[in-house]
This record gives sequence, C-alpha cells and structure tokens, in this order.
Amino acid sequence: MNFELKPVTEPGQRLVALAEEHAADFATRADQHDREGSFPAENIEAMQKSGLMAAPVPEEFGGMGVDAVHDLGLCMGRVGRGDASTAIATNMHLSSAWAVNRTHKAAAAAGDAQLITATEGLLGGIGSAALVTCVLGTEPGTDLRHPLTEATRDGDGWLLNGHKIFGTMSPVTNLFFVVVRVPDEDGGYRAGIAFVLRGTAGMDVKDNWDALGMRASGSHDVVFKDCRIPEASLVARGEWGTLTGQALETGVFGTIGLVAAFLGIAEAAQDHIIELVTTRHKAERASVQQAIAENEIDLAACRAMIARTGVALDAYAAAHHLSQDAPAELHDLHKDMQCTKSVVNRKAIEIVDRALTLSGGSGYLSKSPLSRMYRDVRAGPFMQPFSPNEAFEYIGKVTLGLEPEIER
Amino acid sequence: MNFELKPVTEPGQRLVALAEEHAADFATRADQHDREGSFPAENIEAMQKSGLMAAPVPEEFGGMGVDAVHDLGLCMGRVGRGDASTAIATNMHLSSAWAVNRTHKAAAAAGDAQLITATEGLLGGIGSAALVTCVLGTEPGTDLRHPLTEATRDGDGWLLNGHKIFGTMSPVTNLFFVVVRVPDEDGGYRAGIAFVLRGTAGMDVKDNWDALGMRASGSHDVVFKDCRIPEASLVARGEWGTLTGQALETGVFGTIGLVAAFLGIAEAAQDHIIELVTTRHKAERASVQQAIAENEIDLAACRAMIARTGVALDAYAAAHHLSQDAPAELHDLHKDMQCTKSVVNRKAIEIVDRALTLSGGSGYLSKSPLSRMYRDVRAGPFMQPFSPNEAFEYIGKVTLGLEPEIER
Amino acid sequence: MNFELKPVTEPGQRLVALAEEHAADFATRADQHDREGSFPAENIEAMQKSGLMAAPVPEEFGGMGVDAVHDLGLCMGRVGRGDASTAIATNMHLSSAWAVNRTHKAAAAAGDAQLITATEGLLGGIGSAALVTCVLGTEPGTDLRHPLTEATRDGDGWLLNGHKIFGTMSPVTNLFFVVVRVPDEDGGYRAGIAFVLRGTAGMDVKDNWDALGMRASGSHDVVFKDCRIPEASLVARGEWGTLTGQALETGVFGTIGLVAAFLGIAEAAQDHIIELVTTRHKAERASVQQAIAENEIDLAACRAMIARTGVALDAYAAAHHLSQDAPAELHDLHKDMQCTKSVVNRKAIEIVDRALTLSGGSGYLSKSPLSRMYRDVRAGPFMQPFSPNEAFEYIGKVTLGLEPEIER
Amino acid sequence: MNFELKPVTEPGQRLVALAEEHAADFATRADQHDREGSFPAENIEAMQKSGLMAAPVPEEFGGMGVDAVHDLGLCMGRVGRGDASTAIATNMHLSSAWAVNRTHKAAAAAGDAQLITATEGLLGGIGSAALVTCVLGTEPGTDLRHPLTEATRDGDGWLLNGHKIFGTMSPVTNLFFVVVRVPDEDGGYRAGIAFVLRGTAGMDVKDNWDALGMRASGSHDVVFKDCRIPEASLVARGEWGTLTGQALETGVFGTIGLVAAFLGIAEAAQDHIIELVTTRHKAERASVQQAIAENEIDLAACRAMIARTGVALDAYAAAHHLSQDAPAELHDLHKDMQCTKSVVNRKAIEIVDRALTLSGGSGYLSKSPLSRMYRDVRAGPFMQPFSPNEAFEYIGKVTLGLEPEIER
Repeated sequence: MNFELKPVTEPGQRLVALAEEHAADFATRADQHDREGSFPAENIEAMQKSGLMAAPVPEEFGGMGVDAVHDLGLCMGRVGRGDASTAIATNMHLSSAWAVNRTHKAAAAAGDAQLITATEGLLGGIGSAALVTCVLGTEPGTDLRHPLTEATRDGDGWLLNGHKIFGTMSPVTNLFFVVVRVPDEDGGYRAGIAFVLRGTAGMDVKDNWDALGMRASGSHDVVFKDCRIPEASLVARGEWGTLTGQALETGVFGTIGLVAAFLGIAEAAQDHIIELVTTRHKAERASVQQAIAENEIDLAACRAMIARTGVALDAYAAAHHLSQDAPAELHDLHKDMQCTKSVVNRKAIEIVDRALTLSGGSGYLSKSPLSRMYRDVRAGPFMQPFSPNEAFEYIGKVTLGLEPEIER
Repeated sequence: MNFELKPVTEPGQRLVALAEEHAADFATRADQHDREGSFPAENIEAMQKSGLMAAPVPEEFGGMGVDAVHDLGLCMGRVGRGDASTAIATNMHLSSAWAVNRTHKAAAAAGDAQLITATEGLLGGIGSAALVTCVLGTEPGTDLRHPLTEATRDGDGWLLNGHKIFGTMSPVTNLFFVVVRVPDEDGGYRAGIAFVLRGTAGMDVKDNWDALGMRASGSHDVVFKDCRIPEASLVARGEWGTLTGQALETGVFGTIGLVAAFLGIAEAAQDHIIELVTTRHKAERASVQQAIAENEIDLAACRAMIARTGVALDAYAAAHHLSQDAPAELHDLHKDMQCTKSVVNRKAIEIVDRALTLSGGSGYLSKSPLSRMYRDVRAGPFMQPFSPNEAFEYIGKVTLGLEPEIER
Repeated sequence: MNFELKPVTEPGQRLVALAEEHAADFATRADQHDREGSFPAENIEAMQKSGLMAAPVPEEFGGMGVDAVHDLGLCMGRVGRGDASTAIATNMHLSSAWAVNRTHKAAAAAGDAQLITATEGLLGGIGSAALVTCVLGTEPGTDLRHPLTEATRDGDGWLLNGHKIFGTMSPVTNLFFVVVRVPDEDGGYRAGIAFVLRGTAGMDVKDNWDALGMRASGSHDVVFKDCRIPEASLVARGEWGTLTGQALETGVFGTIGLVAAFLGIAEAAQDHIIELVTTRHKAERASVQQAIAENEIDLAACRAMIARTGVALDAYAAAHHLSQDAPAELHDLHKDMQCTKSVVNRKAIEIVDRALTLSGGSGYLSKSPLSRMYRDVRAGPFMQPFSPNEAFEYIGKVTLGLEPEIER
Repeated sequence: MNFELKPVTEPGQRLVALAEEHAADFATRADQHDREGSFPAENIEAMQKSGLMAAPVPEEFGGMGVDAVHDLGLCMGRVGRGDASTAIATNMHLSSAWAVNRTHKAAAAAGDAQLITATEGLLGGIGSAALVTCVLGTEPGTDLRHPLTEATRDGDGWLLNGHKIFGTMSPVTNLFFVVVRVPDEDGGYRAGIAFVLRGTAGMDVKDNWDALGMRASGSHDVVFKDCRIPEASLVARGEWGTLTGQALETGVFGTIGLVAAFLGIAEAAQDHIIELVTTRHKAERASVQQAIAENEIDLAACRAMIARTGVALDAYAAAHHLSQDAPAELHDLHKDMQCTKSVVNRKAIEIVDRALTLSGGSGYLSKSPLSRMYRDVRAGPFMQPFSPNEAFEYIGKVTLGLEPEIER
C-alpha cells in the first residue's frame, strides 16, 4: 500500500500518469534553470504536446476532460516533484482553464449565448494548445481586492495603466487575465478583469524575476502604460473591495494545485534523503529514523488534508453553479482550503529542513537538489490570496461566525 | 458546510447519531465522575440499552451491523466529546467486538467449524448485551509483545499468574481477554490469549485507578494468582516476541477509536472556548482570532488524517482475511495509523492548551470543563501499542524499509 | 561545574541555602496538600522561624538584608523545586516586602518623614515575622489597571466594596494590599492601594480555591462589603488606567520570583526523570538521551534568561529611585522581564511534559509527583500582569517604539 | 537600556567598537560577494590594518590583548551583522590565535622552552598581521576525531595525503592547521596537527566553494598529495579517536564566536524588518507586533545564553591550564556550549524566517538582504564539532552522567 495521493477519476488517472512522466524529465533540467534563472519554455511545450496543458478542457474542445479539481491538484503535486517552478507556472494556466470551463457550464445553464461563445472560444484555444494563460493579480502596496491598475475609457475601448508583479508564467503566456479597477460614476471603483493578448502595445513583460527560489517560474513584473484593449476585453465583475463569489472561487479552486506543488517538493526531498541515508548506511541510527518518521508523519498530514479538501472542492463545484454571490458555504470551503494551505506550506518547509539536516552538510552545497528545494519551498507561504497572518485572521473570523473581512 | 467527520455507511449514520445523543447525556455527569474517580457504569448500561455496545455485531446476532472501522472510530469521537473516559472504556469493548466479528468471518471463509461456533457464541453474547469485554495487555516493566503473565498447565486446564495494569473498562467487564505467555517445551514461550470470566477464583480486579486524568475510565490493575481456566479458554496464538498478523491487526484496528476519542476532547474544547470568547465579547481581538484559527487548522489536520486512515483500514479489511501472517501492507497500514495517532494526540493536547490560554484563567479552575479536558487529553500519547518514541522508531523503520522491530 | 543559578550576593547565598533546606522539607508534604487542596501554613511558619520570610528586610529591622532581586528570585526557584504552591504564595509576601523596603529608601532620599515612619513600621513588622502580606489585584472581567473594587468616602475613613480573585497566600495573610479605584470629583477615578488588616469587618476571605494545580496556594476569593478602613490606610497612587512607575515596578520586580518558581518545577521534574530512567536502565536509549538533552537545553535557556534579567533588575534598582514616572528604561526592563517570563513559562511546561512522556505512563498516575508538576506548571502563563497574548502585544509595542498601551 | 550583548573587559570594548565599524563597511559589499561567491579579501585586509585580526594576541606581541572569549565572541556577532561569511572566516583565525595564546601561557607555566619559542613566533606573526590561520578539520565520510588525512614518515619529514572540506578562510590563509592521523607502530593511529604553509608543494586549495549560503566564506576543499612538511611541523597530540582536553577546548572555545555570528544575522534581520514594517506603516497591526515580539523573545534567549556561556568559558580558562586531560568540568562546559549553540542556531533561523514572512514577499526577492540572511543562517546547525543530532546525544549523555562518546 502506498499512501501517496491517488486520482479519483479516470481522466485524472491518465493526467497523473502523464504528469509523472513529465516530472522525471523536468527534474533533469531543474538545476540548470534554477542557476540561470531561466524559464523552462521547453517544459511548457512538452506539456502542450502531451495534452497536459489542456487537462481541464472537455474532450469536445480538444482537452483531457479532467473536471475533478482533486485530480488537477494531484497533477501539480507530481510536476512539483520534478520542478516546482514549472508546477506553479502550470497551475496558473490550468486553474484559469478550469475556471473558464466552469464559467462555460454556468453560461450554458443560464442560456447566456454571448458568454457561451466567448468561453467556447477560450476552451478551443486552450484545447488546441494555442493559448497559454495566466492571471496578473498582485501589485506592490495593496491587496488582491484593491488593485491600483486601472482601466479607463478610451472611446470604444479601454486604456490600462499599472504595474503587476509576480507574473508567474508570463514568459510564454499569450493571454493575460489582468485584475483591474474601473472608475465608476460616483468617484468609486468597480472590480474588473481585462483580457490582454501578448504583444499588445503598451504592455511590457519585464525579464526581471530574480528571487531566493522558484527561480525558473518566470514571475516577472508586467507593466501597462496606456495599453489599449477593445471594449469586449474588459469584464467588470462586481463590487469594489469585497470578495465576490467568483473572486472567492478563483482563490479557493486555484489554491489546491499550488499547495500540492509544495507537497511535491516535500515528497521529493523525503525520497532524496531516504536514498541518501540508505546509501551512506545511516538508516540504522535512531536519530535518523526519528527524523525520517517526523517527515513521514508530516507528509501523511499534508496528503490527508489535500485529499479531503480536494474532495470537498469537487463536491461544492458539483452542488453549486458559479455565481457572483458568495454563500456561507463558500467561505467555509475557503476556510478549509486555507487550513490545508497553512499546514502544507509550513510542513513542507519543515520536511525539507529536516532532510537538509539529515544530509549532514552535503545538502547545503549548491550541487545538491536539497539546496534548491530549500529555497523553492519557502515560497509557499507567500502564495496568494492570503499571507499566513491574513489566513489566520480569515480562518479565525469564519470559525467565530464573524464577517470575514481582512484588515488591509 | 461542516467539516466534522461524517460516517461513510448507513448503519454508521445511525450509530453516530446515537453516540451524539449519549454524549450530551454523559457530559452532564463527566465532572462528577472525574472528581470522584468513579466509573460511569450507568453510561455503559445506557449504551447497552440503546444498542451502541453491540454496534459492530451483525444484525443477525442482535447488533447494529456497523462493519466500517471508520464509522466505529467516529462513534468514539462523538462519545469523547461528552466524556472521554467513557469513550476509551467503550473502545476497549467495541474494538474487541469488531475483532471477534472479523475472526468469525475468517472462520467462515476457512470452514473452521469450531471457531465458527466459538465466535458465534461471543457475537451472540455481545449482541444481546450479556457480555462486556476488554483486553488486559499492559504490564509494568515490559511491552505488549513480551507479557510476564503466564499460563501454566494444570491438568486439563491452565493456571494464570501475573499482574496487569491499565485495565480500562474492568469495573463492568465480564469477559476479559488476557495477553499471556505460555511456556513451550524448549524452555521458550509462545504468545497466547486467555479468556477469563469475571468472578473466576484467583482473579482480582483492584479498585485502584487514580490518575491525572481519564479518572472515570476504571483502568484498574487486575491481578491473577493461580487463577484456573479451562483448556478451551486459552488460545496460543503464535511466535513469541513478534507481531503476528492478528496481533498487529488488533493494534491497528483498535487504535482508531482511541485516537478519535482524543479528537473528541479537542472538538469539545474548541466549541467551549468559541462560546466563551463570544459571550465575553473577545471574538474581535486579533490574538483571539489567531488562536481560534490555529485550533481550527489543527482540527482540520486531525480530522483529515482520521478520515483517510479510517477509509484505508476498511479497504484493507475488505481486501484481506484475518491471518497470522503480517503482510508488508499491514505494516504500511500500521505506520499510517501511527502517523495519525502521533498527530492527533499531540495536536489535541495543543488545542486544549490554547483553549485554556484563551479562557484567561477561568479554565484553570476545577469547575471549568477545560481543566478536566487538559488532564484527560494528556493520556493520548500513552495509549498502546506504542509510546511516542516507539512510534517514531516504528514509522521510521517501516519508511526506510527496515525490519520494524522495536527496541525493548 | 553546575549550571544551576547561583546567588550574586553574600546574604543571597545564605538565603538560597536556607531555601534549599526548606524545599527538601516542603517536598515531603506537597503531595498531601495538593490532594486536599489545603494551605501549608506550617511551611510559612517554618520560613518565619528561619528568617526567610524577612529576607528582603534590612538587618537593622530584623531581616536578612537580601537586597538583590536576582537572589530573591533564586530563593523562589529553590522553594519551587519542593512545593510550587508555597513558592508562589511566598513570592507574594517577599516581593511586597522588597517593595516596602524600596519605598523606604525612596522616602529617606526624599526626606519624607511620614513615609519613612510608615515604611519603617512595615519593615519592623515583617522583620519580626509579625506581618504576612499579599497583594489583591486580580478581578474577574477587568485588568489590573482598571479595578472595579472601589473605595468611597465614609466620614474620616473609607468603605471598600468589591470582589478580588486569585488571592494567593490569603489564608495566613494579616495585611492585604488591595488595588482599588477611588472616585474623583470629575466623575472619573484615581488608582489606589488600600491597606486592610485581616479580621476587619466587611472583609471575607473565602475558602474556595479549587483549581487544576497550585492547589496548596490558598488563592481564594476575597470579598469586600462595606469594609471600613481608616483614612491613612488608603494611598491614592495616581492616574487611572495607566501604568505609573510604581505600578510598573511592582509588575517587573515581583515577576522574577514567580518565573523562577516555575523554573524550580522544571528543575525538579528533570531531576526526577533522570533518576527514574537511570534506575530503570533506560538511559542508554537514544530517544531517552534526546529528550533529556532537550530538557537540559531548555533549562539552560531559562536559567540564562533569569540570571540576565535578575542582574538587569538590580542594575536598574541601583540606578533609579522609585518614582511615579515610568521612564522608557523601565518599559525596556519590563519588556525584558516579559521575554523571560514568556520563555520560562512555556519551556517549563514543555520540560515537565517531556518528563511525563519519558516516565512511560507511570508519571500519569496520581502517586507520581510528575502528575502534580504537570498541573502546577500550567499556571505559569496565567501569572499577572500579562497574559501570553498581552505580553506579545507589550513586547511588540515596546520593541517597535510604540506607546505600550495594552488592548483591554 | 539596550539588551544587546556588551563586552565585559576594557580591551573588549575597543574590539567591539572596531567590529561595529567594520560591519557597517562590510554590509555594503555583502550582497555582491554573495552573488559572485567571491571571497572578501579586502575585508580581511581591513581588519588586519585595524588590528582586529590580532585581537587575542597580547599587546607585547603587537595585538589588542583581548583575552576574554566572551568579548571575542561578541566581536564575531557584530561582524556577523554586516557579513556573516566574513564573520565565520574571521572566527577561524581568531579562535586559532586565542588557542595559540593559551598554549603559550601553558608553556610558560610549565617552563617548556621549546613550546614558548614556537608559540611566541606564532603570536608575533599574528600580532604583526603577517599570518592568517585556519583549521582544516572536516573530511567527507568521517568525523573530527577520526581524520583520514594521513601523515607518513619521509626521512626527516612527513608526507601528507588527504582531502579536507569546508576550509573556511582558505583563500587568504597562509598557515593551515591540519588535523591528521599518524600511523603508530602497532598498526593503529595517533591524532596529530600538521602546520602547513601556503604554497607548500603538494597542497592544493581548490576554488570550489559553491553553496546555498555563506557563499563569501571561501570554504574550499583543500587537497594534499604527497605534501612534504618538516619534522617540526607535526605535533602528535594524543590518543586516537578520543577527545583530548586540548581538542575539546578547541571545540568549546572556538564555538562561541561561530554561534555569535549567527546571532548577528538574526539581529540584523530583526533590525531590517522593524525598519521595513515601520516605513510601510504596518507596525500597528497586532499580527506584526506578535511576530516582532516573538523575534525579540528569541533574541533575548540567544543573548542571555551566549552571555552566560561566555562568562563560564572565561571562568574555566582562568581556573584551568590547558591540558591533554579532559576533566569532567570541561565536558560540562562543552555541554553548556552545545546547549547554547543548539538554541541560537535554531532560533536564529526562526527569527530570519519570521522577518521573511513579515516582509510580505519582498524579502523573497534576491535584492533583499533577507534572502541572503535566510540562506546564510541555515549554515549554523552544520557548524562543527557536532551536528544537531550528535549534540543531542552529547548533551544527553553528559547530563545523564554517561561516557560522552558519540556514535560514529
């Protein structure tokens, strides 16, 4: 019996097997991309060829038809074992693709012909590997609910101005979903999403990602300066400063793949160190056994939480249509997701740390994959939408039955 | 949506509902039994009447037919919310009853007529609430695999001599399963189980349980002095000093209910403190929200692990007959069970500790249920078969692919 | 070389030696008083006879002349090894006595004849063992800076009304220092201290202390109902709701003895468990060595912090006269004291917890002193003036250079 | 009042002031050396000019006369705030210089003319900044007590063969102290130290240090291949495989500077983050205050332990001459040093980790000094002579009164 996470759907099984093959390949280049800080475009290309990049797209649009978020998450975990940078970049795309599919289903249920057409276009593009997407949300000095990047009217179109950071996957993205604010007539704002094609004039994908870890994730700044997009490329989604149902869903459903990616790092670290202590004949030492056991215990906790949350996410998705309203259940679900994120991010760091200690110094050398994992895994707690302290606040408030507004 | 654990079978749903009713009742007397150190015999009686004490017995023998260990575990968790002492005592009985049923199935599959008859007798006794059982395993100065209590030949019967401790449920048990050693012809020993009826001459259930917590669990010493039992009341199970498949199974399948009981304490502590801080208008404080969130995160981890392990246990039971052999899978399963135990026991302690801190001093008073929970919950790590350090050793060895022998 | 804490003054050496003798004696009765919840009046009496109860009183007033707070703290640590309840009760008295002496010195320096007379009377009373004192500060539902117990004018005296809790040492105290509020003319309040002799009409020392631990500390409720005291028995100290220099000093200098008492519990637990594992031939086990080492590391941290803070306290006292003003240095000192309290209280709990685990179950029995230590040591974080969360807030604010007001 | 560590001797005050000046300068280049992995030779040169590199050398030999190990440790802490790589490299040299001085004193006391001459030569060389020294101890696959590097007879000299790693300071060292084994007549070994001048034929200082952190420490491999040294350049120190008094002393007295260097990183991280949260107006947040407080508490613990251990080291050095025998007191002292190392190394890592969390993502970027500190500080637990697990074993055994032999 093996306690690693297993897919719960049949298309998910194909996806996870595919991910494992890719991961073995990606692992051979992870060190080099990390050193260079270069984006592994060839990895993305390989996943386009294999179909993985179209995993959540229904088969009728050319995809693999993996609808279960649980299984999409597992896929990210497997990729993360080989190269975590690739995993978090891929998650940007796959979680967006999944959201497009969910929007398509909601449109179909509501008979919204325009939205059906729009989402089918996107699904076709992703299904045929023509489109690579990512979300540009984060900006310095504010939070996701209060973007400073602004879309202002310009005749029959919009002008975008602003500065996005942490644009993971941006080196190869050709369709960006940009979180913006749109001035309304009262001097206030509405929240919106702008669709921007790569190469649009006034958009500049900086080649400036240089960080402690996740160095191959291409998380560049993207700057918009009077970047003009057509009328139809802006969707104004709702109230300013609050979490609409749709925004909440993005946060909830996009997070599991991220979290699983960090589990993947931890799993790879544990595998690596088990092999190392065995080869070095240190497995008989009581202190080694204890550290290995502590890692195994933490892995068991992470896996159980991801599995349970994944199943809960799919149950929610099955029971609810996408909607602007955020039912209490969605906050409960998000609370659960944040509990899982909190444990997995922290435990994954500890697992890699113990592996480093067990390596007896050799893991501290740059040539050991542990030294990369130690840097990569520390990115976890910074993953959106909540910092660790914001997550405590959110979880605490939902648990206490208070309005889950987060202090800015 | 509520993230508490839910039963996975239909009979399990009835069982858990029943357990919740009992728990509400037991909670009203928990404080008094704790103060007095008295055994809540009336709780056991109530559960005999309701049928809970016959939960794992098939309906044809008068029971509730709850076969899923997952659901039996949940039942203990619910009882533990009301009175943890009652929960761990009840688990002694229910896990034995479940094992009898599993033995009956194995006997039926093997066509072992004698064993079929014997187990049907037991099932009938438990199903009709005539029998209350417990296992007497622990002894001072040795471990479960090397009992000092000895069964020696005496004509057509056996004489038992020895001293058992931690005889939880002993005040009302009428059939004891006693772990013994049996001298063999080579000067060595075999491992055995003696079945001893209450009131047998030479058996003395001391009324001496007096501990920090779990004060109502009746975990008395039981002393055997030339206690004579018939030939048929001894089953010599196998090799001395090793974990047979059957012994391992007992450890694995009996543990989930114990672990769930400690989760129950933690859940009750969290409920209690949420109500307290809300009543006292402290829920708006950031530090309170953080502590409540930390508890919720820990509860989420414990619940996820119990659920996943429970499902794994049931999958194993469905796939394997009871056997003397311990397949590698059984060790993997036991490792997983111990990972869950390790996390839940430790986290449950921390959850109650945080609740105590949040109480601001009032929880330290004897009149607060938190002061009892703080003492009760600390029993968790002492629960058999492994101490925390032995568990690390076991988990480490299984993970490293070593022979899982534990240092004595 | 022994790394236990050593006194830094010559009178301190005599005091600590005395404390060790008493501790050995107190230890023989600690279990009984714990079970009964009875106050060890004979311990107090013995310390009156030996002179320990007059330790901080100058020799000219009949005391031992121990001026160093560092050494007074150590004395409490030594007593705490034998009986922690006695230690925290004694600290109530000794820290008050030290404060009286410090007030006397300030009065002498200022030439305040009335205060000189008053404090000399108190010093003489404590020096001759006629007076046993304690502070009544805590009340339910408020904090130390906002007492609800009120002193109202009644002719040439005052009437006290209110309800104090956690009146440690109250069973044998004959002079109570009661923290009160005094209505002023603007409808607001001033902060004050009332001196109340035992037996004053309208004062009721309840015999109701019943808690998880520290059961022999006599921390009863004390209720005042139209309790009349003379004009001179009330000192109105200063601004309402703020920490005056004098109030801050009380919090700072009274805390080190409390903290040391909890170190004493931890030291006793470590000694106990080292003897136990040695006797049981378990000292050669790697896991035992690790747990013993973790305890030793934690003890080393606690001892180093208490020593450093003790020296800093004495340096501050030597450099500053007692004053109503609270200089920034006093907040720095208090921050340091709270850092020490935070570490020692938490680590002492962990040390006892590890000892319990190492005991293998026997420590969970009521007859083991570990079961009492486990309950006693948990009182630490509740000790005034700050709860753990308030301490974080205070330390954080002082460190960040913010006004250290604590949220009520 | 400022709770940072303060020197306890007058020459120490001059040294620490000097170190603070250097640190401010070094900080300006730390980032560049880290990126390049280049050795900051100009830092060493600056400290030679200022006299810091001769700190422990008596004034008569041209040094600063800082005899107190406490103050030498503080010096490393101050340097570590600016550039931790420089600090650990400098500690290599200063701790060796201190040991030479101590050997000189022992030689003078014993009237050992040859040793007096030899050590005076070294002191003069270090005092005049002609000599930079380091110890080459570590080798892959063995521990410090069982070097594989061997010195074999070659006429009137010795041939060295072996491979040393972690040769911190090696880029500018001109006198290496190399830990070797010397075959004896029985087919066994003695332990020895070889003195090897830079540029000796057969010695190769590799330029190959490339690690997660401490990238500017020049911790290259040094390979010896038939490297011939004169007869007098080898000192055979004693029994093979055991810790002689002299070897133990090296471990004990050389460690405090290392430990202090990691405190320096933590102090710099706390200063950095306090400024950041203040500038960004986040200091009023409760969660920020708590994290800052947790850091301050941990810093207080680290400082108190370093101060107490430093004072204990100096007291030991004053009371004992250097000797081959290792008295029990020396093991107690080493145990205390290891307790301090264990806490400081772990807490320093946690402090930097919290600072990273508080930075809200910006600290994860390479341009933030926090990203370097996060990598540098993780080197702490790998510092010789004990890994974390070996330290537990050592501390546990000494505490339990067992022979402190460490499992290989």
